[in-house]
Amino acid sequence: MKDTQVNISSEFSIIKKYLSGIGASYLKINGIDLSIGDDCAVLATKSKLLISTDTSVAGVHFLKSMPAESIAYRSVATALSDIAAMGGNPVAFNLSLVMPSFESSWMAGFRKGLQKISREFHFPLIGGDLVKGPLQISVTVLGKPEKNILLRSNANPGDILCLSDPLGSGFIGFKEYKRIGVLNKTTKPYLFPAAQISYGKIISRFASSAIDISDGIIQDLSHLVTRSGVGCNLDLDKVPLVNQKYAKQCLEFGDDYQLLYTVPQKKLSSLQARLNSFNKKCHTIGIMGGKKLVINSKIESIKNWDHFQ
Amino acid sequence: MKDTQVNISSEFSIIKKYLSGIGASYLKINGIDLSIGDDCAVLATKSKLLISTDTSVAGVHFLKSMPAESIAYRSVATALSDIAAMGGNPVAFNLSLVMPSFESSWMAGFRKGLQKISREFHFPLIGGDLVKGPLQISVTVLGKPEKNILLRSNANPGDILCLSDPLGSGFIGFKEYKRIGVLNKTTKPYLFPAAQISYGKIISRFASSAIDISDGIIQDLSHLVTRSGVGCNLDLDKVPLVNQKYAKQCLEFGDDYQLLYTVPQKKLSSLQARLNSFNKKCHTIGIMGGKKLVINSKIESIKNWDHFQ
Repeated sequence: MKDTQVNISSEFSIIKKYLSGIGASYLKINGIDLSIGDDCAVLATKSKLLISTDTSVAGVHFLKSMPAESIAYRSVATALSDIAAMGGNPVAFNLSLVMPSFESSWMAGFRKGLQKISREFHFPLIGGDLVKGPLQISVTVLGKPEKNILLRSNANPGDILCLSDPLGSGFIGFKEYKRIGVLNKTTKPYLFPAAQISYGKIISRFASSAIDISDGIIQDLSHLVTRSGVGCNLDLDKVPLVNQKYAKQCLEFGDDYQLLYTVPQKKLSSLQARLNSFNKKCHTIGIMGGKKLVINSKIESIKNWDHFQ
Repeated sequence: MKDTQVNISSEFSIIKKYLSGIGASYLKINGIDLSIGDDCAVLATKSKLLISTDTSVAGVHFLKSMPAESIAYRSVATALSDIAAMGGNPVAFNLSLVMPSFESSWMAGFRKGLQKISREFHFPLIGGDLVKGPLQISVTVLGKPEKNILLRSNANPGDILCLSDPLGSGFIGFKEYKRIGVLNKTTKPYLFPAAQISYGKIISRFASSAIDISDGIIQDLSHLVTRSGVGCNLDLDKVPLVNQKYAKQCLEFGDDYQLLYTVPQKKLSSLQARLNSFNKKCHTIGIMGGKKLVINSKIESIKNWDHFQ
């Protein structure tokens, strides 16, 4: 890490005390030759590498009032979700923390969040920087793909459109957090979203394409449709939701980080068997084909979404 | 690249029009299997990889009033400078652009700056994201090391402390730009700082350690001293400056991105010969040894810097 602009000693002590040594036990096994402390980190990777960057801005992607532990965890999880969508394994991450001022308790919470996700996914923080400015966190994750890399662009006509889990836990958790402001079973999926790494690895052997749902199912499905050059018939009413009362919000809000993917029909049963053996499900919600994205739904307001048609 | 939050179509059109296809001709030769457009980029690298992240914040690292072309170029150059300090070769970069609003002319300039540095160093933009928020740019650069990787930690007692070029062009350029607000010979080094990639590659065969000077020579030298666990006698008055009248500022301001490095005495003459053959110089400004950083200088204000002693 490298300090910028502000008082040297304080910047250094912050980096040393709060941003160093996170996931250090995973450095060697993940092929990291050199971590925080030099101009660059050094990776000794024999395999291909996945890389993705995601920036989270206070007031846009998270509430300033949220616990620093959650802000840190969420910022890494949303980036990590892109590795999951490719069916990859986490290797390491860089983090750039921009914050207006230093508060030891906030930084302690922030470190706790980084340690939490680092431990969960066995990958270390290997670099980045700490600068003064409006609160935001930019995370770059590195991943190692499985044998098959899941792309957005390989869906074929006839492939079945699948979803990893019900949508809406992000919206419901957000709504509840704004109301009560504490961590509980309902707010946890928003405060500590789960990157679907293990799910992504399982489906990587079966799926033809995949994307993570960060911006709402219609929007992310439209990426998959566009990149694959094949239309889709989406049975929106078949999409499992956490809360039917807020159907539209659960579908549009995003922040669920579930995986949306396509599977050739002949592989569907073996995929389902495989998922069941891991106590995971596969929700079939449509079929690929035609030239455009067609949304079948009883919900009037949703049926009228036509900005992709 | 992936849009976030804001109006889909506009975000997509911005990414497509202004942030795609930058350095596309370098994708294949640099081992990039997949670039912008999916959840991750995919690198097929057989060598070790260098990685570094640098974030530039409006009002902290650059002036909002600066040309967007310069803001883009500078943001990438400062990150690229970390690759130079390791003696590496640019491979690719990710860019996260956070901006409060969209202006086509500004974005056109920003794209121009990205294309400029991408062309100069033959490396492509392979991913990142575009989000709404206070203007700042986070860049993650990937590099391929030469046979020897230059670390901050390998300086030995007796090694000669060297500098690539005179300091102060950043400060003088900044001062002049604030005064006249145009691009000229004086402001160029600030608006478009040069990452010392070729210089770093040349010295990588001779130097024992290196660091780029982004935060002022004393501060960056202190990193090298600390990491190497060896003191240094710095002849501050031997440090070549762009402008003696502003000696202190030239030494403290940073933003020069020159390389500060150590060379074993027996290798110095062959390094100098090698550099001369490329019309480059090596300024010897001190010697490593002892336990602390000792600054020898006639300038009173500088002699009194004692926060590393």
